[in-house]
Amino acid sequence: MALIVQKYGGTSVGSIECIEAVAKKISEFRDKGDDVVVVVSAMSGETNRLTALAMEMMEQPTPREMDVLLSTGEQVTIALLCMALEKRGYGARSFTGGQVRILTDEAHTKARIREIDGSRIQAQLEQGEVVVVAGFQGVDESGDITTLGRGGSDITAVALAASLKAEECQIYTDVKGVYTTDPRVVEDAKLLKSITFEEMLELASLGTKVLQIRSVEFAGKYKVPLRVLSTFEEGAGTLISLEEDTDMEDPAIAGIAFERDEAKLTVAGVPDVPGIAYNVIGPVSEAGIEVDVIVQNAAADGSNDITFTVKRSESDKTKVILDKLASSLKAKGVVLDKKVCKVSLVGVGMRSHAGIASRMFKALADENINIQIITTSEIKISVVIEEKYLELAVRALHSTFDLGDPDYEKDLES
Amino acid sequence: MALIVQKYGGTSVGSIECIEAVAKKISEFRDKGDDVVVVVSAMSGETNRLTALAMEMMEQPTPREMDVLLSTGEQVTIALLCMALEKRGYGARSFTGGQVRILTDEAHTKARIREIDGSRIQAQLEQGEVVVVAGFQGVDESGDITTLGRGGSDITAVALAASLKAEECQIYTDVKGVYTTDPRVVEDAKLLKSITFEEMLELASLGTKVLQIRSVEFAGKYKVPLRVLSTFEEGAGTLISLEEDTDMEDPAIAGIAFERDEAKLTVAGVPDVPGIAYNVIGPVSEAGIEVDVIVQNAAADGSNDITFTVKRSESDKTKVILDKLASSLKAKGVVLDKKVCKVSLVGVGMRSHAGIASRMFKALADENINIQIITTSEIKISVVIEEKYLELAVRALHSTFDLGDPDYEKDLES
Repeated sequence: MALIVQKYGGTSVGSIECIEAVAKKISEFRDKGDDVVVVVSAMSGETNRLTALAMEMMEQPTPREMDVLLSTGEQVTIALLCMALEKRGYGARSFTGGQVRILTDEAHTKARIREIDGSRIQAQLEQGEVVVVAGFQGVDESGDITTLGRGGSDITAVALAASLKAEECQIYTDVKGVYTTDPRVVEDAKLLKSITFEEMLELASLGTKVLQIRSVEFAGKYKVPLRVLSTFEEGAGTLISLEEDTDMEDPAIAGIAFERDEAKLTVAGVPDVPGIAYNVIGPVSEAGIEVDVIVQNAAADGSNDITFTVKRSESDKTKVILDKLASSLKAKGVVLDKKVCKVSLVGVGMRSHAGIASRMFKALADENINIQIITTSEIKISVVIEEKYLELAVRALHSTFDLGDPDYEKDLES
Repeated sequence: MALIVQKYGGTSVGSIECIEAVAKKISEFRDKGDDVVVVVSAMSGETNRLTALAMEMMEQPTPREMDVLLSTGEQVTIALLCMALEKRGYGARSFTGGQVRILTDEAHTKARIREIDGSRIQAQLEQGEVVVVAGFQGVDESGDITTLGRGGSDITAVALAASLKAEECQIYTDVKGVYTTDPRVVEDAKLLKSITFEEMLELASLGTKVLQIRSVEFAGKYKVPLRVLSTFEEGAGTLISLEEDTDMEDPAIAGIAFERDEAKLTVAGVPDVPGIAYNVIGPVSEAGIEVDVIVQNAAADGSNDITFTVKRSESDKTKVILDKLASSLKAKGVVLDKKVCKVSLVGVGMRSHAGIASRMFKALADENINIQIITTSEIKISVVIEEKYLELAVRALHSTFDLGDPDYEKDLES
C-alpha cells in the first residue's frame, strides 16, 4: 500500500471513453490498496478551442484573463473523471488548483509553484477517496487564477508528489516509456526499465519528447521518482530516479538522442582575442535565437573559426545578423550549412567506462561518416554530421553499444 | 454617478460579437461615470454541451462534480468579457463565484446564497475597474463549488446589488421589458415603464417569462430596484420596484397574463366533510404534480364538487390518480377537460379601484365567453375559460381596460 500520484495528459482524457478507461486504470490501483492522487490535463483540443476564442477577441489576450479562461479546461476534466470513478463505485473528489491551494507567483500564463497545502488532499485520502486535481493551474497570493505554462500538468503532478511524499509520480502518455532511441529510426530500440534524472534531461533536451524538461528538473530537485508509462498499453514503463542502475550488466550508454533540423554557422578567420566568442554569440542570443553546440578552435596562425548550431528555421535570420557583424569582427567570412544534424550518446556510465568516445568515432568512421563537430560533457558525447547520415549513424551506434532489445528478434522468429 | 449591477444572459453573450456588443454597452455607462458590476451567464449552448458530456458519463451525475463542471461555463464568459473591455481600453477584472466569495449552502445544483463579501469588488471599483462576476455559482463553507440552479445568474445579480447597495440591478434580456400582455397575442401591447414586485410576481408566475420568479422575490425582499431591458435594442425597459406608480393616470391594471396549456379536473359529488379537499389534492401533490387553481363549491344538497387545474401534460397522470381515489372518496365521478386556459388581470390598483371584476366579467360576456372558474386575490382576478377563446378574451380585456399603446396606431398611420 503506497501513495501514488498519477498524471494523465490531454490525449489520455480526450473523450468520455478515454476518461472511463483512465478511471478503470485508477480503480486497479485502489483495488491493490494504493492511495491515488490524480492530476489531469484538459481534454485534447479543449485548450486550443479556448485559445482560439481568446485570439478571436484580441490578438494579445490579457494574461490574467487568459488564465481564468484556460483553467476551465482542466476543471471540466476533473469533474468528468470523478463522475467516471463514482460510476465504478469508487469515492472521488475533484479539486481545482485554487481549491488545493497550489500557491504560485503572479506570473500569469507561466507561473511557478511556490507552495502546496497538502492537508485537504490528505484528509480526503484518509476517507478512502481518490483525489483528482486539475493540472496546469494554481492561485497567487491574492487568489487570482494562474497557469503554469507548457508542461504545467506534469509540474503539478511532480509538485504534489513532492509535497505529499508520494512513493512515485507516474506520468501516463501515449508512449510506453523512454527508449534507447527513437523506435521509428531503430526498429529494435529497447524500452528502458530505468534511467537517471541526468540522463533523462539530456535525452529530453536532445529530442526524445516524452517529458517536459522542466518537470524532470523539478522531480530531480525534489527527489521524486518519476515513472513514464502508457495509458493505453500495459507495462511498467520507465522509472526515472536518482540512483544509477546497480545491475552488474549496467550498460555505459542509456540511449542515443538526435536532433534533425539543425543548421551550422561558421564565422571564419576572426582574430584570436579575448571576448571574440561573446562578440559573435551575444548578438545572436539577444535576437532571441537559441544557440545549441558552440565550438571554437584557434589555428596556429593566430586566427580563429567559431562554429555553432541553431534550429534550421532560424538559420537565415542568424546569417543576416552575422553578415552585418562580419566586418566589425574582422571576419574572413560567414558560412551557413543547413544540412546538418546532431547525434548524442547519453549515459551516466560514461563516467566510469573508458573509451566510449573512441568506440563512437570508430563506428562512424566504419560507415564513412565524417564528423564536423564534437562536443562532450560528463554524461554525453555529441557529434554534428551531415544530415543525410542521421539514421545510418544512429543505427550504427545503437548496434555498436549493444542497445538493441534482445526480445525483438525473438519476436520476429516466433 | 451611480453603482449599477448589470446581468447579461446566455444569448446576450452567445458569441464573440455579442460579447463585444455587451462591452460597448458597459463602456457607455462607464463614460457617464457610473461604476459597473457585471454578472454573466455561460455562452448560450455551453451549459447544454457540458450537461451532455456529464449525461454521457452517467445518467445521474454526482451533484458536487456537476457543479464543478457547469461552473466552467460562466468562467469562460467572464474572461472573454474582460478581454473585450480591455480591448476597448476599459480596465476590467473577472471573478468566479468562489473568488468574490459568494457563500452558499451545500445544496449542490440548487444552492442558496447565504452571504457575499463585497469588499474585494469594492476595492476594484475604487480602482476604476469594471468588475465582471460569474453568475450562477458560489462556494460553500468548505470551499466546494456550488451552483444556484435555474435563473441562478439573475439571483447572483440581485444578491450583488443588495450587498453592494447598488442603485439599480439591470437584467438584460432579448425582450425590451415587461408588456401589458404578450405582444404576439395583442398587437398594441404596451411596454410598461414600471411595475411593482407584487405585480411582476403575478405576471411572471402566470406566463410572462421574462424573469425567474425566484429573482423577483429576492429583489423584493432586499428592496433592490430591478430593471428589465434589451441587450440588443435601445430603451429604458421596465423598472420593477417597491413603489406604485404615483402618476394620477395610474391604471388599475398593470397587465394581463395567461396560461395556455391547462387542464381542468373535477371530482364530482364528494361529501361536504372536513378534510375532503386535502384528500383530493394531497395525493396529486405527493405525485409531484403542480396544482394551480383550486375551487370548491358546496351544493345545497350537501354534496360537493372540487375542481382544480394542472398542466395539460400532467393531466392524464392526474386522472389516473383520481380514478383510483374515487371510490374511497365516495365521489360520483372524475371529469377531465383538457381544453381550458387561464386568463388573469393583474394590478395593485385593484385594491383601490372598485368594479374591476364586474367590468372583466361583462367584457367576457359581451364576447359570449363562458367563465368556468373564477379565483381572486388582492391584486389579481383569474378566470378559467375554454381554450379556443384565449386570444379573444385577452384582446377584449386589453381593450376594455385601455391598456393599449397609444403610440401604436400613430406608428401605423405614419
